[in-house]
Amino acid sequence: MDELKLVEQEMLEPDPGRCKPVDGAIAHLVRSGGKRVRPRVTLLVCRLLGTDCQRVISLAAAVETLHTATLVHDDIIDGALVRRGVPTLNASWTPGATILTGDYLFARAADLAARTGDVAVMRLFAQTLMTICNGELHQLLADRRQPIDRSEYLRRIYAKTGALFVLAAKAPGMLAAAGNKVLGHLQTFGCELGIAFQIADDLLDFVGSESQVGKPLGSDLAQGLVTLPVICFLEQHPGDERILTALQGASKTEHVPVALEAIRNSEAIEKTRDEALQHVTLAREALLNLPDNRFRQALLDLADRSVQRQL
Amino acid sequence: MDELKLVEQEMLEPDPGRCKPVDGAIAHLVRSGGKRVRPRVTLLVCRLLGTDCQRVISLAAAVETLHTATLVHDDIIDGALVRRGVPTLNASWTPGATILTGDYLFARAADLAARTGDVAVMRLFAQTLMTICNGELHQLLADRRQPIDRSEYLRRIYAKTGALFVLAAKAPGMLAAAGNKVLGHLQTFGCELGIAFQIADDLLDFVGSESQVGKPLGSDLAQGLVTLPVICFLEQHPGDERILTALQGASKTEHVPVALEAIRNSEAIEKTRDEALQHVTLAREALLNLPDNRFRQALLDLADRSVQRQL
Repeated sequence: MDELKLVEQEMLEPDPGRCKPVDGAIAHLVRSGGKRVRPRVTLLVCRLLGTDCQRVISLAAAVETLHTATLVHDDIIDGALVRRGVPTLNASWTPGATILTGDYLFARAADLAARTGDVAVMRLFAQTLMTICNGELHQLLADRRQPIDRSEYLRRIYAKTGALFVLAAKAPGMLAAAGNKVLGHLQTFGCELGIAFQIADDLLDFVGSESQVGKPLGSDLAQGLVTLPVICFLEQHPGDERILTALQGASKTEHVPVALEAIRNSEAIEKTRDEALQHVTLAREALLNLPDNRFRQALLDLADRSVQRQL
Repeated sequence: MDELKLVEQEMLEPDPGRCKPVDGAIAHLVRSGGKRVRPRVTLLVCRLLGTDCQRVISLAAAVETLHTATLVHDDIIDGALVRRGVPTLNASWTPGATILTGDYLFARAADLAARTGDVAVMRLFAQTLMTICNGELHQLLADRRQPIDRSEYLRRIYAKTGALFVLAAKAPGMLAAAGNKVLGHLQTFGCELGIAFQIADDLLDFVGSESQVGKPLGSDLAQGLVTLPVICFLEQHPGDERILTALQGASKTEHVPVALEAIRNSEAIEKTRDEALQHVTLAREALLNLPDNRFRQALLDLADRSVQRQL
């Protein structure tokens, strides 16, 4: 998709006020940018609705820059030294410079969103970032003695991933002045795709290969992070000591491999897969209400592919 | 000013997505909020131009929330435990929770700015945050072996303080659909007032009382931060070893009192005062091009007062 190159170009647009090392850091962050699922969604929705794609390039760049900014801060908060197989910014920079580069990227993302000239899009953009921060704060400040349940998990992954996919899918509809019905379908598509995407990502921490995940398996468990495979397992084996010890134990690292193995060998893996696929189905169904053209087909394929890698 | 209460109310507006401890933190941050110089400027400019002050409440709340967000991140970067005599957020919270609360406040500020419904204001808002971050990154990543000169100092304090004062003064003019000439005067007013304000603040680190500054005198020196009193002193005493040692020495703390005393007893203090007052004069002159009414007088008084405390 040629437009994806234009999106990257806009993300890399020089800023004369920026100092050299930050230029380099941003180029590094943008170039090691992964699969670009979110801006692809934005561009395809725009095409599907048959509208002018000029402003949508800025919008897609805003969405992906916002995503990048949140990753920069996530990595410093988690102390992650590697992402997608390449060193994180905080691996070589001071915390201060890393925090400020993330802040700068939030500002850039807001500026890119403002280039759309659409006030409603800019409000949705701001509210999406509020939702993401609130979700992370809930997770960080939660009482970890009681593992979260399925509904709390869904709330968290909606905030973590679903909300930004909603922005990616709905905002181009807003630029296209689509009606409320269409916007509703785009919202459902983004929400369900984002949730499916995050469930599949969470599953990878159990069944992926380290090279694929880019970090050791069981990292979520080791951090005390309860994801859907854990919830499914605990639903079948309430109060299982191996899992609770791994999640809460002070000397977590010894207990993590035991818990990891127990979950890998259980039905929890299959149940998690099913649940991800159910959300993909809901995303697909929402799309089927929209005009039938090759861009809709591309979005249906993207929805399938986005979880396939993991499932 | 009653409208200032409305601004605070909008800053404190509940968000059902937020978790309880963050509600408390934000209430604490907003309530310990200092003199509110920036939102006062925004409200007074709006009144001066005789326009409807409905949207300007959101704008003033956006400006002050943006200011608050930058302080939250500044304090964690500097490791500051006290601001305005009260404990900072990072004094009691983890770095992760502090970073995310700052991010949330950036998002809130963007949402408040979006409530103005004015795309140009929202772009200026985003670009102001870019300028602030760029300025801080320049300062953080600079080579400290060579003290900065006067022009670099002015560039930095423009980014640190001037840019946000420009937003505070110019954006209400944009909401009022003022012409380019008026916007130019508002921009000059904001810029010069912000610079005067920051010079006066930097001077306090040398001549204030600890209770007034809320931190030990000489803190900037101890951090290797070169401000105008240092620059004026070095212009008179090039290469003075006491100053250079305090700024660069590994065992800074012993050398700071010596350097502090040398600068306090020099003409650098008077020269810095003069320079702050020159910028106040430029700010006043810009205002004198605008309609003569009691709100203009209030802004002239505010400009005088904003540096008086320190001078």
